Amino acid sequence: MVKLENPKKPENVSNKNIPLSDFVVNLDHGDPTAYEEYWRKMGDRCTVTIRGCDLMSYFSDMTNLCWFLEPELEDAIKNLHGAVGNAATEDRYIVVGTGSTQLCQAAIHALSSLAGTNPVSVVAAAPFYSTYVEETTYVRSGMYNWEGDAWSFDKKGPYIELVTSPNNPDGTIRETVVNRPDDDEAKVIHDFAYYWPHYTPITRRQDHDIMLFTFSKITGHAGSRIGWALVKDKEVAKKMVGYIIVNSIGVSKESQVRTAKILNVLKETCKSESESENFFKYGREMMKDRWEKLREVVKESDAFTLPKYPEAFCNYFGKSLESYPAFAWLGTKEETDLASELRRHKVLCRAGERCGSDKKHVRVSMLSREDDFNAFLERLANMKAH
Amino acid sequence: MVKLENPKKPENVSNKNIPLSDFVVNLDHGDPTAYEEYWRKMGDRCTVTIRGCDLMSYFSDMTNLCWFLEPELEDAIKNLHGAVGNAATEDRYIVVGTGSTQLCQAAIHALSSLAGTNPVSVVAAAPFYSTYVEETTYVRSGMYNWEGDAWSFDKKGPYIELVTSPNNPDGTIRETVVNRPDDDEAKVIHDFAYYWPHYTPITRRQDHDIMLFTFSKITGHAGSRIGWALVKDKEVAKKMVGYIIVNSIGVSKESQVRTAKILNVLKETCKSESESENFFKYGREMMKDRWEKLREVVKESDAFTLPKYPEAFCNYFGKSLESYPAFAWLGTKEETDLASELRRHKVLCRAGERCGSDKKHVRVSMLSREDDFNAFLERLANMKAH
Repeated sequence: MVKLENPKKPENVSNKNIPLSDFVVNLDHGDPTAYEEYWRKMGDRCTVTIRGCDLMSYFSDMTNLCWFLEPELEDAIKNLHGAVGNAATEDRYIVVGTGSTQLCQAAIHALSSLAGTNPVSVVAAAPFYSTYVEETTYVRSGMYNWEGDAWSFDKKGPYIELVTSPNNPDGTIRETVVNRPDDDEAKVIHDFAYYWPHYTPITRRQDHDIMLFTFSKITGHAGSRIGWALVKDKEVAKKMVGYIIVNSIGVSKESQVRTAKILNVLKETCKSESESENFFKYGREMMKDRWEKLREVVKESDAFTLPKYPEAFCNYFGKSLESYPAFAWLGTKEETDLASELRRHKVLCRAGERCGSDKKHVRVSMLSREDDFNAFLERLANMKAH
Repeated sequence: MVKLENPKKPENVSNKNIPLSDFVVNLDHGDPTAYEEYWRKMGDRCTVTIRGCDLMSYFSDMTNLCWFLEPELEDAIKNLHGAVGNAATEDRYIVVGTGSTQLCQAAIHALSSLAGTNPVSVVAAAPFYSTYVEETTYVRSGMYNWEGDAWSFDKKGPYIELVTSPNNPDGTIRETVVNRPDDDEAKVIHDFAYYWPHYTPITRRQDHDIMLFTFSKITGHAGSRIGWALVKDKEVAKKMVGYIIVNSIGVSKESQVRTAKILNVLKETCKSESESENFFKYGREMMKDRWEKLREVVKESDAFTLPKYPEAFCNYFGKSLESYPAFAWLGTKEETDLASELRRHKVLCRAGERCGSDKKHVRVSMLSREDDFNAFLERLANMKAH
């Protein structure tokens, strides 16, 4: 969940006399502002112009099951997946949502309403995206129950496993862990928010029943609140659409047409050899640079830990590559509460316990603006001395 | 709720040989496309241009309780209410939502989570907006229960009354009907979607605890999915913001900046004497024309009924005026199922039963495009002959 705490950055406050070391660096949320610079350099290439009389109706395409999906966005999504090769779009329904947050809830709602009995258990393997807990508990629905860590799940009856790959918070490649192959009541939602070539090698074209994607984490346009689901089963897609109709009567058309424009530019430039033009190359280089700096600090300090990721052949880049996840899953070698320790040094991170893990781990956003990231590195380097 | 049925209009189909009388006129949903013409005539005055690097962050203003509300939208909302005089904005929190649909659910969630005991009863006086039923039942929340018609509500314990004024579907001016003045557990949400001068005389500056407004029904920009709540109590506003964070992590920034632009133009032109410039004048004339035509057909036929509305002094226009509601609450004098009867004549309307009323009434949108409205009038005129 996005936190309400104020990251107080120098440009946000009027009193410029506050020493830089007193500013709180907020790397708790995953606000992907790291990419602003790239889009600034793209100039007018992604500019959209909307007239007063445009996009007024609730309806985008009455012949589409998801009638509030703008046709140009549907095309852009299909074309981008085709060019990157990360997911199959043929014979699937595309459902657009107000971020993948709304779609995840729509999918859980849809699967639960189609299950033989309620409540349906919802699980995810720890460490998991902490927001799943809030999403499945805040309305106290009688249709589903959050049952926590999938590794220890042993309840009978219908269940939904949320599989995030690469995983948020720890960047690992995930498969289902509750394996009941002959169980008709076993359902899976794949969250592929980070399955893009700047973060991880694209090793296969994913082809699951329900796959979620979000605009925010591809290009950094979190403010647009656009996500989409690729859904095989028509009844599931219909129920998801039904959820979104009651929840918000569709999805912002302005955001949809802007997303379409930007995804089209992404697709057009994604075969370019130029790092300043090809967004995925640009993003990969930036993430590589940040990860190398972070690993260097961690190595120097000898007080912290970071996961290691195996290299794999990336079909998109055509070579074997490392992973540079959007979050660092930072651990401490000492018996301390790492989130509190970092907070004392004015760095906010998500506590491991919120992700179903322990006090010795935190989730750190790698997608902040450059100055925040550098301030974090500096403070982390200083922490070992204490 | 917006229906999935296809309104099949001549311009949407390839076979132009289908006789016009065979096309289904869908006046079930309230898609406010009637206003497109006005905005087309406004030309570039409301055009927004958004660059690729704009509006990327989740955050709009970290110092605001509703941190995902764009400051320019907050200003535009306050200025428009100030100019029209329909609602007090001083000493209130403004919460933006993905339409007032999301905000209504956020408000019910907030009041329920602050109530001493759950579930909280939710009621509305019949005939009521049918979507309230779906909004309060679809997730099967343990926090609140839809208890139906407020006129017959007599349960003890905490409750929320939804008051829509002017009312959807019947255009009447409403107050609370469950009156328990000394009951701390009595809460009210005022839905003022239609409390604007083109629909109804502005008789007072509303000043209630929770007031909901929607961009869709003011200007016709339903596709933007923007609504706002004016909320007196800080804890209620906080809980509403918390709901929207988990539900969709905020609200489309593109829609917010476009809404701000259009509300500013509305405010700038709302003192103009020119009907082609002043949107509320334009809207009132269009609605007047449609209502007069409909009343004429109904009078001629002697088979149908329509509510009568008292004139009242409108502070905005400075004179006594009639009401021209966004929906017509059409009744039949015969013992028939009016929705089925209309459907046989290829006119789709919302059945009175869905609004907590009877088969003899239907809700008819008055905000469709001109050709749909005229086709409806023609078919209604023909129905009396059968």
